[in-house]
Amino acid sequence: MKLIGLEAPDRTIVVANRLSATEARVIAELREFWTDAAAYIVSAGDSDSSADGDVVAIADYRVVPPVLPEARVICIGLNYRAHHAEGSFKEEAFPEHPTLFARWTRSLSVDGAEIPVPANERGLDWEGEIMAYLGASLTDANEDEAQAAIVGYSTFNDVTSRIAQKLTSQWTLGKNGDGSGPLGPIVPATEVGSLAEGLRVQTRVNGETVQDGNTADIVYSPASTLALISRTFTLRPGDLLATGTPDGVGYTREPEWLLQPGDTVEVEVDRLGTLKNRITARSN
Amino acid sequence: MKLIGLEAPDRTIVVANRLSATEARVIAELREFWTDAAAYIVSAGDSDSSADGDVVAIADYRVVPPVLPEARVICIGLNYRAHHAEGSFKEEAFPEHPTLFARWTRSLSVDGAEIPVPANERGLDWEGEIMAYLGASLTDANEDEAQAAIVGYSTFNDVTSRIAQKLTSQWTLGKNGDGSGPLGPIVPATEVGSLAEGLRVQTRVNGETVQDGNTADIVYSPASTLALISRTFTLRPGDLLATGTPDGVGYTREPEWLLQPGDTVEVEVDRLGTLKNRITARSN
Repeated sequence: MKLIGLEAPDRTIVVANRLSATEARVIAELREFWTDAAAYIVSAGDSDSSADGDVVAIADYRVVPPVLPEARVICIGLNYRAHHAEGSFKEEAFPEHPTLFARWTRSLSVDGAEIPVPANERGLDWEGEIMAYLGASLTDANEDEAQAAIVGYSTFNDVTSRIAQKLTSQWTLGKNGDGSGPLGPIVPATEVGSLAEGLRVQTRVNGETVQDGNTADIVYSPASTLALISRTFTLRPGDLLATGTPDGVGYTREPEWLLQPGDTVEVEVDRLGTLKNRITARSN
Repeated sequence: MKLIGLEAPDRTIVVANRLSATEARVIAELREFWTDAAAYIVSAGDSDSSADGDVVAIADYRVVPPVLPEARVICIGLNYRAHHAEGSFKEEAFPEHPTLFARWTRSLSVDGAEIPVPANERGLDWEGEIMAYLGASLTDANEDEAQAAIVGYSTFNDVTSRIAQKLTSQWTLGKNGDGSGPLGPIVPATEVGSLAEGLRVQTRVNGETVQDGNTADIVYSPASTLALISRTFTLRPGDLLATGTPDGVGYTREPEWLLQPGDTVEVEVDRLGTLKNRITARSN
């Protein structure tokens, strides 16, 4: 099952199960879906009840992230040891806790969308990742409760404006460029299993492999990270957790290698599929 | 004029002009308001046209922030020199660019709301501030364009979970506690003028003054900061910018002074009024 968001011309958004490149079966209105995502996913997988949803032509809609506007997009900055060892923080010990930074939903986009290079950057950097989607609230949760709350995963490219990211101690600006957070369709957690089993995460630029990692190398599991977060604030259904990127990003290479207008970047993850986006010049 | 958000029992939210402690005049539905906030504010200030809006009893609604769910709440971390000199970064030079961090709208609340202390904190720290509200889009804007896009200001308390904030290099977790971002009503920019004129910003804990700063000491003006941000991403109507806090926070004091359940914290700013909140224990 591959869940996508479809926005109708009247701006209403539904979550739908993509049946093919051209058709999808509607599951529920976006806000309704996130009131009980796990149940809607079970229902959509049941051939009897799923027959209730209309089959629609994807071309009649705009494909959008199936994400609530108020969702928190929480990202782990340093999670694969080899990525820590290649970057700006390599002289420091691997952090004792997951390094969390924020994206706002306004930075998110979808498979196939174009990503503009901001005017003051030398290019954009790739960070192939896996996004986890929360289907329940979590307050002071333990890891088992947190794991059970994850309803699905998708591919994600945490495309980064490195100059903006490194202007100050806080990375926020460089992590929120327009259209810089493309998401693939959500695959139910029941089809994905645990990231600890080892999913291969690859990033390719114009067909050339630039990242080739495995989630078995993750230091902070999604469940342990969500449990930690839930001690400071209550996680809500529809919140997202980006699980970090393997080594092989562009800014640490010599010479530096950044995405330029015309480049194509792909993130491929076992069981989640391939996310493909093209880089463009910024248009004002 | 003091603009507040009112949520009806059916969950629809309107922006209204608070006429008294008990009554408000409805201006527009929240999303409609932000399509042209400047025009709605002018219209609401015009005694002829404002007569169009219903006068309602505030008690019939839940008071909520008049903020879009997808709004970006962009915060300047170090903006008053004396606050930089008292904190963790005092051994470093004052940063060359505004230090920007993120809140999600799910952390916001309103005047009078209670603020819970997370279970793993020794208390909460105060940061009295001014919030600026954007009424227009900005891409690669200059300072004049950015200044013109600010439609209003409010009081803001950037209440901080210091343990969570200092766990790693990134402050995100400690800046997004439940209910930790109370906002006062929006006062139109036309009534406030420029922050450079010097607005006094005071914070009081149980009546005792703990911060007493002035916006004349701000290093990065809202306009220059918004212009900088707009070079990386397009600012949208309804986005917010928190302009930083003066010196006098609690964590740098000896002994440390943090807000405890039962404490009352107030932020008072010239022309913007007083924002008052009570601290509570976290309830699960």
